[in-house]
Amino acid sequence: MAERGRGWARAVRGLLLDVSGVLYDSGAGGGVPITGSVEAVRRIKASGLKLQLCTNETQATRQSFVRKLRALGFDISVAQVTAPAPAACHLLRERGLRPHLLVHHDLVPEFAEIDKTNPNCVVLGDAAENFTYANLNEAFRLLIGMEKPVLLSLGKGRYYKETDGLKLDVGAYMKALEYACDIQAEVVGKPSKRFFESALAELGVPAEQAIMIGDDIVNDVGGAQQCGMRALQVRTGKYR
Amino acid sequence: MAERGRGWARAVRGLLLDVSGVLYDSGAGGGVPITGSVEAVRRIKASGLKLQLCTNETQATRQSFVRKLRALGFDISVAQVTAPAPAACHLLRERGLRPHLLVHHDLVPEFAEIDKTNPNCVVLGDAAENFTYANLNEAFRLLIGMEKPVLLSLGKGRYYKETDGLKLDVGAYMKALEYACDIQAEVVGKPSKRFFESALAELGVPAEQAIMIGDDIVNDVGGAQQCGMRALQVRTGKYR
Repeated sequence: MAERGRGWARAVRGLLLDVSGVLYDSGAGGGVPITGSVEAVRRIKASGLKLQLCTNETQATRQSFVRKLRALGFDISVAQVTAPAPAACHLLRERGLRPHLLVHHDLVPEFAEIDKTNPNCVVLGDAAENFTYANLNEAFRLLIGMEKPVLLSLGKGRYYKETDGLKLDVGAYMKALEYACDIQAEVVGKPSKRFFESALAELGVPAEQAIMIGDDIVNDVGGAQQCGMRALQVRTGKYR
Repeated sequence: MAERGRGWARAVRGLLLDVSGVLYDSGAGGGVPITGSVEAVRRIKASGLKLQLCTNETQATRQSFVRKLRALGFDISVAQVTAPAPAACHLLRERGLRPHLLVHHDLVPEFAEIDKTNPNCVVLGDAAENFTYANLNEAFRLLIGMEKPVLLSLGKGRYYKETDGLKLDVGAYMKALEYACDIQAEVVGKPSKRFFESALAELGVPAEQAIMIGDDIVNDVGGAQQCGMRALQVRTGKYR
């Protein structure tokens, strides 16, 4: 691709790829690769282009996420994945925040080293089945009881597609808590500028030499463009 | 009160009262009257002032709501209650809308006469335990699948107080669905102008001769003022 591209493509040295809806359609049984995507990743790596996955996946640790991708046939390492939970841990430490977690059960190990006693913030991820009435009320009560409520949201997606249909994403629940508490969440993950900057640093390529490829016009395309990158929207995944 | 009031109070002929947080604190066991409120209702009625309850209560039919109030000692009839579900039924009929209901189980009988086949809108109430992940995804999928999604929300409260603590109100879930579908809900119930106008019509008193009394600055006070009524905020209920 780099060798045969038109002018702008010649300058491309690295690709950031969204995962769900681009490499595979996620689903309860682990998901299904999108036709041609395993081969595409193989060819990108063979071409010498640098590759970093830039995902808002928060239903699993990076380790188990990579295990899943490898099982589907993608030759990817943990270092090649930029994800919101490690970014959130960095931010929590930096600011001395002790989170109450409303996240997917499988994401909890990412926060193992973080002090969670006497919480002074709430971290919200795509909690899926953990988005119960009781858990949402609990997170709300903690926030409304804080002098200055801090809500960190691991993404702000509206919805995503699983093999059994569309699902509300973390952004919808973020809006519910924002409205109830009259606050603004801080988004960790796409489309935040800081998150794309981390992904570029891990990719080792400057913004003008990288392209982001994703299926979400706001999180992927908008976020990347805000960082000075070019971006492509694929027509798989949630594209309608 | 009418006899002994200052100038403006002399002109008052009717009272609209919010219920939860004003007459009682609601709770799982049926709630507890707020000190003095049973006697206050008795004296209002004895004074010759007209009285109408103007509630966003959507966890019960008006019939069972009134049964509960009477059990707590309030001398109130069904005709003295203006509530969102009957207002919504009126609107659904007027516009030929067939709802999918995401409401409290005990509210469902209010919609018994409404055609609910092949839904072309979603009606959202304070569904409480029915606010499950699965039910929210179902309502979302129906909305996102409509050519022009119609979401009717029975109120837009942020939260309310029950005896066991604060709970997220219907407004928070409304915001979640609005964001996910990129739409604006139509609010039936307080603070909508149309709802207060219905309550005034049922009270039989013009806006300038009525006072609204509630604990919610937006739903009660703001909504009433928008209709040309005066309003008082009490410091019970959710007042913080």
